[in-house]
Amino acid sequence: MTQKTAISFKREENYAEWYQEAVKLAELAEHAPVRGCMVIKPWGYALWEKIQRILDEKFKETGHLNAYFPLFIPLSYFEKEAEHVEGFAKECAVVTHHRLERGKEGGLVPAGKLEEPLIVRPTSEMIIGEMFSRWIHSYRDLPLLLNQWANVVRWEMRTRLFLRTAEFLWQEGHTAHATGEEAEEETLRMLEIYTRFVEDVLAIPVMRGKKGERERFPGAIETYTLEAMMQDRKALQCCTSHFLGQNFAKAAGIRFFDRDEKEKYAWTTSWGLTTRMIGALVMVHGDDDGLILPPRIASSQLVILPVIHKEESKSAVLSYAHALAGKLRHLTYQGALISVFVDEKEIRGGEKTWGWIKKGVPMRIEVGPREVESRTLSVYRRDRPHKEALTLSSEEFLVRAPSLFEEIQRSLFQRALSFRDRHTRRIDQKEEFLSFFTPQNREAPEIHGGFASVHFCQDPVLEDKIQEELGVTLRCLPLDGGTEEGRCIFTGRKSPQRVLFAKAY
Amino acid sequence: MTQKTAISFKREENYAEWYQEAVKLAELAEHAPVRGCMVIKPWGYALWEKIQRILDEKFKETGHLNAYFPLFIPLSYFEKEAEHVEGFAKECAVVTHHRLERGKEGGLVPAGKLEEPLIVRPTSEMIIGEMFSRWIHSYRDLPLLLNQWANVVRWEMRTRLFLRTAEFLWQEGHTAHATGEEAEEETLRMLEIYTRFVEDVLAIPVMRGKKGERERFPGAIETYTLEAMMQDRKALQCCTSHFLGQNFAKAAGIRFFDRDEKEKYAWTTSWGLTTRMIGALVMVHGDDDGLILPPRIASSQLVILPVIHKEESKSAVLSYAHALAGKLRHLTYQGALISVFVDEKEIRGGEKTWGWIKKGVPMRIEVGPREVESRTLSVYRRDRPHKEALTLSSEEFLVRAPSLFEEIQRSLFQRALSFRDRHTRRIDQKEEFLSFFTPQNREAPEIHGGFASVHFCQDPVLEDKIQEELGVTLRCLPLDGGTEEGRCIFTGRKSPQRVLFAKAY
Repeated sequence: MTQKTAISFKREENYAEWYQEAVKLAELAEHAPVRGCMVIKPWGYALWEKIQRILDEKFKETGHLNAYFPLFIPLSYFEKEAEHVEGFAKECAVVTHHRLERGKEGGLVPAGKLEEPLIVRPTSEMIIGEMFSRWIHSYRDLPLLLNQWANVVRWEMRTRLFLRTAEFLWQEGHTAHATGEEAEEETLRMLEIYTRFVEDVLAIPVMRGKKGERERFPGAIETYTLEAMMQDRKALQCCTSHFLGQNFAKAAGIRFFDRDEKEKYAWTTSWGLTTRMIGALVMVHGDDDGLILPPRIASSQLVILPVIHKEESKSAVLSYAHALAGKLRHLTYQGALISVFVDEKEIRGGEKTWGWIKKGVPMRIEVGPREVESRTLSVYRRDRPHKEALTLSSEEFLVRAPSLFEEIQRSLFQRALSFRDRHTRRIDQKEEFLSFFTPQNREAPEIHGGFASVHFCQDPVLEDKIQEELGVTLRCLPLDGGTEEGRCIFTGRKSPQRVLFAKAY
Repeated sequence: MTQKTAISFKREENYAEWYQEAVKLAELAEHAPVRGCMVIKPWGYALWEKIQRILDEKFKETGHLNAYFPLFIPLSYFEKEAEHVEGFAKECAVVTHHRLERGKEGGLVPAGKLEEPLIVRPTSEMIIGEMFSRWIHSYRDLPLLLNQWANVVRWEMRTRLFLRTAEFLWQEGHTAHATGEEAEEETLRMLEIYTRFVEDVLAIPVMRGKKGERERFPGAIETYTLEAMMQDRKALQCCTSHFLGQNFAKAAGIRFFDRDEKEKYAWTTSWGLTTRMIGALVMVHGDDDGLILPPRIASSQLVILPVIHKEESKSAVLSYAHALAGKLRHLTYQGALISVFVDEKEIRGGEKTWGWIKKGVPMRIEVGPREVESRTLSVYRRDRPHKEALTLSSEEFLVRAPSLFEEIQRSLFQRALSFRDRHTRRIDQKEEFLSFFTPQNREAPEIHGGFASVHFCQDPVLEDKIQEELGVTLRCLPLDGGTEEGRCIFTGRKSPQRVLFAKAY
């Protein structure tokens, strides 16, 4: 192992290249030969499967049922909510034909023109709203609480794996309620489920907040968000939960007869989380050796690497490794059986070890002839430097394994939290704001700034100007920041609470 | 309960209408306002989720990993395999634009024309083949065993819920191997997994066979199929497993260096099962009261209906019902906890009971004041006439519940098997074949015929003619029928084995 790090770029030197290479070397995903699309490889998809399993259980516990709605939305439905359609018109994949035929030059060309173009769903409010309007007639039909796991398409010119691709995977919850209060409660309930998931499972600390007008979902009354800090100090929006008021109910005609026998429009919500979170996992926890997975989300939590130098020790080492794996597979962590993989692949030890380091497996264990003889193990934690081993007897390890996972989980969260705290600043002067968001270090011009907590008058023209000049946007009006009043650092106008500014993905 | 049956059409009278209504009244799915697309409602989607969970486990046990590939396939990739593209060209949704803008008349129109049209995947051989060609270099990279859960689109003019829709959900397995033998083994291994799933979980007996040339997958060497008989005696193809030989490897350039250091083309397979199987469940097991779900696939296996006539007995009945549910939820059937639902909805008893009958829940239990007093239960099996109750003490029921589920599971399979056997005929004369597929009963002209096992010379022109005249197609060359030689009943030419003819979905 002569390499110092597994990735040719260090985070400090070129964060963007480090990210691309970390994703590639962990075999999470790669660019597809289809403009803007990605291929999610097994190691990446396993993370999505685990995200699905954990969130799906939470959605079902809170009374939501899964359903499936069409991929295509007729243009006329899509147009029913004016703000909504304007918000998505610039990034829609449009289906215009329904077959191929031989053209004059012999090649296949689109044929069978559709009377009405179909939009490949960028989000499903309009088609689900239409179905809700058919299903909901009385207050007895409310609340209606549905969720869909699906692919969506938002055309992007500049793409980055997981963070920004034309097609991505997500879940979108859609609910209808009899009153605005209930709908607002639902919006916040789902934000809370996301908060617990992102912090407790993905080990990513988040700022909970409301979006300003500029980043609100097209057509929504309020958009709630979770904002996390990546290691380049930029913010990443982890998910959103929208209180849609009666806007979409009016556009789609979702009416019901209430207990008072009056006909009313329903109140709706929607909320979603996407494969983007896999990108966030990489960017929050990764180090210069690649990915680091929190144990609660890793699909393989522990890998055992038999170290075989000589053919004669092979069978003893392998049987020791498999016996250990067998015992470990009976242990539970967080209510589920520990998932253990014994890697018997016949490649050089160093290459094999580095493969698992780059993939971010939380713990790896090496067993060779020496360990067999002494009935011990060498345990490597992925959150610790890669040469730091803990030598334990196998009995001791069996007792301690679950708590070691928990230590890793907590240390990753704490590390991310300290990083965020270190780079979050309360700023009360315009000059300080400007210098905070201006590169100071010529060696690493990309990485600077962080989260700025400031008083701001929320003037949209000023907000545009700040983005133009500094590349910085209003991320959210934090829910947990208290409501200390103050004066806008730019205009001196009154401000009811501090808001969060940052560069963002 | 004055209704005789819950569905206004009887199967014998109008099978097609019965099917539509059974699907609708069970709340499985409905037509979407998007031409050819369906909305899968929670009760239907829960079946798909269970199909996914069970099959996915089998795929993983046999070494397959899940991944995700793009929804869109560039036209040029799609064209690489000539037979393949011809097979799908007539039913492709084509994306030609990537945004919308205001047209001259103020309405939104497609804009941003793509340089190359994109096909919404009807199947993913070509895009996955392209990725395989990038990932496979050496025999050490083989076998590569992947699976994808996804939506696909095949444009259809005449649609039927679950059976034939423009968009449907499926899984598609794609594998690459170093030798033809290994690829053929894989093709048959997956057919066996499907067979066990369809027969043992869905309780649908199947004929395993090879497709004739006409129904072979475009580009495949061999297509294997499972054919099941619906209650209108038509055949439904449950799934397919394709041995693709080296055709797709050559089209996509999947080459590897073998142990002998020579560069060779890989051998590939693909195999899939779709949401169509939900339609098969309805059509195989349903009766004139609606759906009947086999316990192993039902998402709610047992529903408890508290019968409350008077307010004063309410709390005693409800607590009896919930105590019972609590105990039942500790029981297992087929290695998983029994799923029990207590339906407290305040609607008339008859309506509530009929709702669950139509949804096909395998067992329902009614508990009222009389049952509370005598510590008994009235148990209704969905596979038995709807008034037939079994009265058991609650202790006795707790002991017997798992075996009752197993009895229902077996009785549904046996019933379907007897039905198929009754309507499968060995035919050795052309005249008998003609009369077998000609309506005999004026009252129910739709339902006649069945599976005809005949010797056939496999002349494609003759096959076309048979379809044209009788609406009957060669379903498969059965794998389990033995290889008794004979003479074609139409031409007298030699035939190496009997084949299966039927009308088909």
